[in-house]
Amino acid sequence: MTGVGFSLTARDGAARAGVLRLGRGTVPTPAFMPVGTAGAVKAMFPADVRATGCDIILANTYHLMLRPGAERLARLGGLHKFMDWPHPILTDSGGFQVMSLASLRKITEQGVTFRSHIDGSEHALGPERAMEIQHLIGSDIHMVLDECIPWPAGKDEAERAMELSLRWAGRSKAAFAAEPGRALFAIVQGGTYKDLRRRSAEALAGLGFDGYAVGGLAVGEGQQLMLETIEETVQHLPHAAPRYLMGVGTPEDIAHAVARGIDMFDCVLPTRSGRHGQAFTHLGRLNLTNARFADDDRPLDPEGRSAAARVSRAYYHHLFRAGEILGMMHLTAANLAYYQELMAELRAAIAAGRLAGVISGLREGWARGGEG
Amino acid sequence: MTGVGFSLTARDGAARAGVLRLGRGTVPTPAFMPVGTAGAVKAMFPADVRATGCDIILANTYHLMLRPGAERLARLGGLHKFMDWPHPILTDSGGFQVMSLASLRKITEQGVTFRSHIDGSEHALGPERAMEIQHLIGSDIHMVLDECIPWPAGKDEAERAMELSLRWAGRSKAAFAAEPGRALFAIVQGGTYKDLRRRSAEALAGLGFDGYAVGGLAVGEGQQLMLETIEETVQHLPHAAPRYLMGVGTPEDIAHAVARGIDMFDCVLPTRSGRHGQAFTHLGRLNLTNARFADDDRPLDPEGRSAAARVSRAYYHHLFRAGEILGMMHLTAANLAYYQELMAELRAAIAAGRLAGVISGLREGWARGGEG
Repeated sequence: MTGVGFSLTARDGAARAGVLRLGRGTVPTPAFMPVGTAGAVKAMFPADVRATGCDIILANTYHLMLRPGAERLARLGGLHKFMDWPHPILTDSGGFQVMSLASLRKITEQGVTFRSHIDGSEHALGPERAMEIQHLIGSDIHMVLDECIPWPAGKDEAERAMELSLRWAGRSKAAFAAEPGRALFAIVQGGTYKDLRRRSAEALAGLGFDGYAVGGLAVGEGQQLMLETIEETVQHLPHAAPRYLMGVGTPEDIAHAVARGIDMFDCVLPTRSGRHGQAFTHLGRLNLTNARFADDDRPLDPEGRSAAARVSRAYYHHLFRAGEILGMMHLTAANLAYYQELMAELRAAIAAGRLAGVISGLREGWARGGEG
Repeated sequence: MTGVGFSLTARDGAARAGVLRLGRGTVPTPAFMPVGTAGAVKAMFPADVRATGCDIILANTYHLMLRPGAERLARLGGLHKFMDWPHPILTDSGGFQVMSLASLRKITEQGVTFRSHIDGSEHALGPERAMEIQHLIGSDIHMVLDECIPWPAGKDEAERAMELSLRWAGRSKAAFAAEPGRALFAIVQGGTYKDLRRRSAEALAGLGFDGYAVGGLAVGEGQQLMLETIEETVQHLPHAAPRYLMGVGTPEDIAHAVARGIDMFDCVLPTRSGRHGQAFTHLGRLNLTNARFADDDRPLDPEGRSAAARVSRAYYHHLFRAGEILGMMHLTAANLAYYQELMAELRAAIAAGRLAGVISGLREGWARGGEG
């Protein structure tokens, strides 16, 4: 799309470093997108999200279409203005949440009808409406509507859903409200079946999109099968376009996926964990509600660069034990900062041609259980 | 106490403007102290509390002695370091929370024993231990231990508790861990009985403290009786010392109490209301969960000066409807900023000798129900 571009700046094996240019900003890749489900990255001021080193966030079409509503969002000036985030936003298409949250789903060739998990109201979502809603939201990257199936799925079911998603991708592209600086990404499906993934990737590449997501992974298949499926899929995607692994993952998942050629990620893990006292640090994961931290005056992450990483473990422990919202605020910020520092380290490692060694060093750090 | 001082800078009728000097900072009065119950002003980063114009916060001895514990707090370097608030902190003595939160209370001449509302553990609190705990916390203003009685109370009961509180005030003063820049405040009791308030005030003034609180009000007696009791009490307090009305109140309560010579306030109202979608603004109180705000793109408070006052009402409405923590964060900040702007307006009005007119103008604003 006009005003959208992706440039690769370095390679290291299958891994790539690059820059994604959008109308509202540029995104160095590999990039991690914090999840702002309902028009807010939970427990974070937008300026503090930005200060973690974040260039792009994800928002959920499903949640926003139900509340506040797409037409209302458009009347209020769009999501960027509504939530005071002037930087790029990627919206998913709603397909995944319809499958995981809504009730009374009915899928036809035309699209999906479902009832809201909030108030039971009935809604319809097809490829054209998914594009219209994302246009009303005003996001910078739109995702095609796809059908997400539960894991495990038989091959017939995976193939049927993949083929339907292909037809929906074509209709999504036709309905995409193109604007300068706005991109449309496709989603490769096909479960863990390599031939289906290949057919999906090749067919979508034939249609032509600004970027390609790998969907339907991290749903229970395990890291090994996930990484094998990624390896198979990326071979059949256009080299010059960004590749986005949806809903992934832990720092280790991300490092391994980057090594296999993935450029973009989103996941609720750093934010959700941050609200439950679980920290991601250079020294591994810490459960700050654990009594061993009550008298631990050391900073959360001695190797972290954020203000939240310097808050003492004893104070975190106290805040979570006392049920203080401030604990969630600090720790969400600490986790998002850690994820962004991780992405910066991976980008630098690719540029320096030493990704394997850096990932090995990261894994040694994660194994330390908080001990510096 | 050495390094503690209070200077009056202006008078307007019974109202006073002044400056309270403590070791960790100076506090222009009349001043409002946000409540940081358990070592955190709820849903606020300390730097953002400071940015509202706040010079001093209150922390609760009762909560901190139970969790994380006074001795642990001392080991961790004291409350200022623990919560990253380098400015003045006033600690209450725990008496009020023992009466309102703890179970199996037993009051004797020696002190009070009670069971924790958190885990049922048994604790004792007398004047000497209340002083020791506040020393371990490291607060800048210590409060004497007093006995708080429910309202309404018969005169015999009010007199008995007031006399016991007087004896405890003497023991508190004797046990006070004096340090340069640290102050000790007494608490006038006596219910709504004018002669008891007078006896309490005169006796405490005779003992000599750095400041004098008016306790036992805003417990159900109503604004009229509260203001009459304040008028009676302040007549018998030393003119040169700060006067602190505990646990009050609404902006209107504060304005009326300032007009009667009160210098300091604390209240959970702006923070607690902020977590429940209730805004305090120059245009009155708004309930942002109300459906009428769903499409209201105007700023929360067009006359407010904080960033949170400029957030749109529609976004606040959405955040509270969606249960987003960010709504609590923004609105707590907006309410605390409003309270601090109110205090600054009252200080300026006293300095200009036009307090009555300013309060009249404020009340007209509060009656506008959000309409600018």
